[in-house]
Amino acid sequence: MRKIYLEDTPLREAQHNLLQRVPFTAETELIPTGAALGRVTAEAVLAKVSMPNYNASAMDGIAVKAEKTYGADEQRPVRLKLGEDYVTVDTGDPIPNGFDAVIMIEHIHQIDEQTVEIMEAVAPWQHIRPIGEDVVVGDMIVPAWHKLRPVDLGALLAGGILQVPVLRKPKVAIIPTGTELIPPAEEVAEGEIIEFNGTVFSAFLQEWGAEALYRGIVKDDYNLIKAALQQAVREADIVLLNAGSSAGTEDYTVHVIDELGEVLTHGVATRPGKPVVIGLVEDKPVIGLPGYPVSAYLALEWFVRPLVHQYLGQIELQRPKITAKMGRRVVSVMGAEDFVRMNIGCIDGQYIANPLTRAAGVTMSMVRADGLLRIPAGHLGYEQGEEAEIELYRPIEHIRQTIVASGSHDLSVDILHSLLREIHPEQFLISSHIGSMGGILAIQKGEAHIAGVHLFDEVSGTYNVPFIEKYLPAQDVVLLQLVYRQQGWIVKKGNPHQLQSAADIANKRLTYMNRQRGAGTRLLFDYLLKQEGISREQIYGYTREAVSHLSVAAAVAGGTADAGLGIYSAAAAMDLDFIPVAEERYDLLMSRKFYQSEQGQTLLELIRSPRFREQVESLGGYSCRDSGNMVYESNRR
Amino acid sequence: MRKIYLEDTPLREAQHNLLQRVPFTAETELIPTGAALGRVTAEAVLAKVSMPNYNASAMDGIAVKAEKTYGADEQRPVRLKLGEDYVTVDTGDPIPNGFDAVIMIEHIHQIDEQTVEIMEAVAPWQHIRPIGEDVVVGDMIVPAWHKLRPVDLGALLAGGILQVPVLRKPKVAIIPTGTELIPPAEEVAEGEIIEFNGTVFSAFLQEWGAEALYRGIVKDDYNLIKAALQQAVREADIVLLNAGSSAGTEDYTVHVIDELGEVLTHGVATRPGKPVVIGLVEDKPVIGLPGYPVSAYLALEWFVRPLVHQYLGQIELQRPKITAKMGRRVVSVMGAEDFVRMNIGCIDGQYIANPLTRAAGVTMSMVRADGLLRIPAGHLGYEQGEEAEIELYRPIEHIRQTIVASGSHDLSVDILHSLLREIHPEQFLISSHIGSMGGILAIQKGEAHIAGVHLFDEVSGTYNVPFIEKYLPAQDVVLLQLVYRQQGWIVKKGNPHQLQSAADIANKRLTYMNRQRGAGTRLLFDYLLKQEGISREQIYGYTREAVSHLSVAAAVAGGTADAGLGIYSAAAAMDLDFIPVAEERYDLLMSRKFYQSEQGQTLLELIRSPRFREQVESLGGYSCRDSGNMVYESNRR
Repeated sequence: MRKIYLEDTPLREAQHNLLQRVPFTAETELIPTGAALGRVTAEAVLAKVSMPNYNASAMDGIAVKAEKTYGADEQRPVRLKLGEDYVTVDTGDPIPNGFDAVIMIEHIHQIDEQTVEIMEAVAPWQHIRPIGEDVVVGDMIVPAWHKLRPVDLGALLAGGILQVPVLRKPKVAIIPTGTELIPPAEEVAEGEIIEFNGTVFSAFLQEWGAEALYRGIVKDDYNLIKAALQQAVREADIVLLNAGSSAGTEDYTVHVIDELGEVLTHGVATRPGKPVVIGLVEDKPVIGLPGYPVSAYLALEWFVRPLVHQYLGQIELQRPKITAKMGRRVVSVMGAEDFVRMNIGCIDGQYIANPLTRAAGVTMSMVRADGLLRIPAGHLGYEQGEEAEIELYRPIEHIRQTIVASGSHDLSVDILHSLLREIHPEQFLISSHIGSMGGILAIQKGEAHIAGVHLFDEVSGTYNVPFIEKYLPAQDVVLLQLVYRQQGWIVKKGNPHQLQSAADIANKRLTYMNRQRGAGTRLLFDYLLKQEGISREQIYGYTREAVSHLSVAAAVAGGTADAGLGIYSAAAAMDLDFIPVAEERYDLLMSRKFYQSEQGQTLLELIRSPRFREQVESLGGYSCRDSGNMVYESNRR
Repeated sequence: MRKIYLEDTPLREAQHNLLQRVPFTAETELIPTGAALGRVTAEAVLAKVSMPNYNASAMDGIAVKAEKTYGADEQRPVRLKLGEDYVTVDTGDPIPNGFDAVIMIEHIHQIDEQTVEIMEAVAPWQHIRPIGEDVVVGDMIVPAWHKLRPVDLGALLAGGILQVPVLRKPKVAIIPTGTELIPPAEEVAEGEIIEFNGTVFSAFLQEWGAEALYRGIVKDDYNLIKAALQQAVREADIVLLNAGSSAGTEDYTVHVIDELGEVLTHGVATRPGKPVVIGLVEDKPVIGLPGYPVSAYLALEWFVRPLVHQYLGQIELQRPKITAKMGRRVVSVMGAEDFVRMNIGCIDGQYIANPLTRAAGVTMSMVRADGLLRIPAGHLGYEQGEEAEIELYRPIEHIRQTIVASGSHDLSVDILHSLLREIHPEQFLISSHIGSMGGILAIQKGEAHIAGVHLFDEVSGTYNVPFIEKYLPAQDVVLLQLVYRQQGWIVKKGNPHQLQSAADIANKRLTYMNRQRGAGTRLLFDYLLKQEGISREQIYGYTREAVSHLSVAAAVAGGTADAGLGIYSAAAAMDLDFIPVAEERYDLLMSRKFYQSEQGQTLLELIRSPRFREQVESLGGYSCRDSGNMVYESNRR
């Protein structure tokens, strides 16, 4: 296999090269009108019947001959005879031959069973719904290439169209490749990766109006991939090969496309998403998507969404954009268009955006993202406080109704989040885990509504308050007690190294997994080291940072670390042992303004609710005995 | 049946009364994650496995023990032995026990099969994708009441969630009632109405995330309706009864709900949509929707959409709004909230909105509407030129890309519309039929891009130009030839009254169907009357106005008129006879600015295309021999 290097083709150019080379001629199919919601018409549709198909009474009343009513007024009422001069009609009834107007029941005076009297002349065709008022035979109900909405279906049926000619959905074959891939499972062995990209592709394709053909997983074998591609090209309009799109020794996509057809682009100048292969095999577009989920989904949107829209003759709607202030500095990768997933909060009417992790393997960053920041190639990025335009992944109404949680991560905040969604579905919550100190600074800078903090002060022996007094002397804030929780050593089942203290880690030369700077748990560890007279250098792994309790536990469970400091529930989740060290206070810091707001009071109510307490305490290692108490408030000035 | 009068309950009050009385407790069901797109989670979902489930190499290269690399640099390269100091790994491979870093293949120097040399020391855990980098066991992937998007499905599968607990879709039973109703058909007898509202309701409900249970048509019979409602209440969460919701003699809905449960509201203060019945039967909401399609769809959105959203714990997103200038006066109905369907065009950067018909029976007005204007109760409406806020039915991007056609209606404009959609899917066209004179005024006032005109000038014996010179003396406009078309008498098959001239209509006392004021066809008729010395008063039906050729033909076909003046294709569409009277020129008037714009040139290209000519001429009665010629242009000043 010859060595291949990735190009740096600009995104727009790669898109253009693809779209102009694809000679789609969509097929047409006739489908029942009732099943045509969201489908695209293949031609103009003309009405086959008129609606209504006859002249109908528009009122309850009597049908009359208008000329027989001429001259009637209050002084000279006119009498009409049943059958000869009038007949009774209800709304929707046909107007019998020879009659040409309707008088409302309220305006007639019944003299006897055969006679009515009227006080007013009527014009011909009054209160008659004329034939074809809604739809007339031959009327164009909808033009070609029209995406059918609910009301269109009604008009089509009203016009006697029982079957509607629509464009066949484009078929998109999805071929997952990779020897390490397994179908979704609850038991995953080492070296196995669950294949889930195909499901995400299918769901996107469904939303865009295409039909996904999911193929089975193909091993990293040139001939197997080639055979799968050959078959897919026969059956589908577009083919997706997932993973193997880069330039490594087992990346076969570019070679297979090259053998069977033509490679248009290999490598686009974007981060993430660079290793994309775009080609044509038998005139059909074949897209090799990167294996990392984030890269794959972005590339799908860049290259496959326009293909589907082009096939269906639809224009792509842009996502709405907003201008937001950067909560942190966002540095760009030089020489490439940069796409950064962002969290966005609306705090005191100002949109604040913070970057999520840029690792392309983190699907959760797509789940958590509120929007996407695009940094053009050659642009250096944004400084903290600068404004930039962000494309929204969530409706702006949701972002405005979102509580932004910052600071330290705790599972009780997740529980609060889920309860909030259940009880107040109009409210949302996003949380970024940047440690307790980060949370205090976020409140200081107005970048978060609430911040979880658990900072132990060595001098006073108390939690949180000394730090708030030091860092937020001029701000009007409130500190609410959320939970008490146990911190302790997280170790393998049975505590194989008999760990009891920080000194043991140094003395027994164990591998430690630390937490990131600014995390309360790290401060606690530093305090323990100091108490026991151990230096940081004595701890193998001190510089290694995990960003959550669960990540620490995962490192221990996976054998990368012998020990870490964290909470009971994280150890329990991974079936590890837990040696208690201290009970600490985990509080929520917020501005008084937020505390007094409707959202703040909603949150307080949830924190004090029995459901919150039950759910948190059932995790183990927690106490909610003071949850919702106000621990501290600034002196009001 | 006792007489019942409709209330005038304000819309908000009626909505509030309903929503606060409905005690939904949604059921939960477990469904495969791959099938959960768009569904709403019933609880928070926590990861069952970590992703990755092991420490994986993030690069192609070798796994090493970091401490063995310490001290390496260009002067003092370090040699590593296979098996002991390093093993080969590809991206995604597990890191074997005892190794703690990865070196990229590009940075190693192979000495022999068992030995490599490195020039740089590496830190522990470099290029290792740690266990749980994406998802960690116990992580909350999505909270409760979360509507699942494609990326969520990926994260769920990555976390080992094969089945996801979601809220069961609310079941909404649809009971169409009416003795005149028939299932959709291509043959409709007099007195029969196609039942299509149910299909529209189903489609809306599907879009909102509910499950529609369509019941068969029930005749207007109290006991049949009662039985159908009783059964529906057992099987569904919400029941819709369609038609019979007013206060007439055969309107049973309110009585049936009253007998089986409780009526909350009967009659809301809106136009259209007033005759709505809202009730509860066995704690389940039962909504009686009006029969007229427009009223029914608006009421569905007002009362059923919030119920579905409440059931699913979702907030309703508002449609986007724009501010537009009224192209015509819009008068409000006093004492009621008024909802007016509007066409919106963007002409020279200004949004111009014109009301569509306000008849509640015209489904096509919903198909054609770009937005909805709400006029509060007590507000008098809007003068021409006043601005008002309009809720959009179509994306704003589409409205900006829409050519606004005005003036006289001709089928060739529909063909142009459909070709435009096919060849330029990014372009749209809306047309309002207000007659040739209306079209000239629309161009004058900047309310349309193009106007179809066919106005015969008696003095000069020519078409259109004298009118443009008279009414648009100061504007820079262009007149393009669209088609020649035959005008003639439209009569029943076999011409039973041997109609040959306008005089015959008067002399034989035939019933005529005229066109609206300002229509070119009306002017032609007036000219014919004058030539033959017939007065308007001698024509029975002169004052009766149809707004299109097809409507005239429909009146003849339906027996409401013996004759009308119109084009060949309209007669042919309804299998009528056609006696030619004159060939006339149907032109398109537009500003020079539009003519020179990209949209204008696109249109010109289509008009001159063979496909346009073929399609138009195949209708019969048309000639495209001069289509696309410029007939007239203003003197440039």
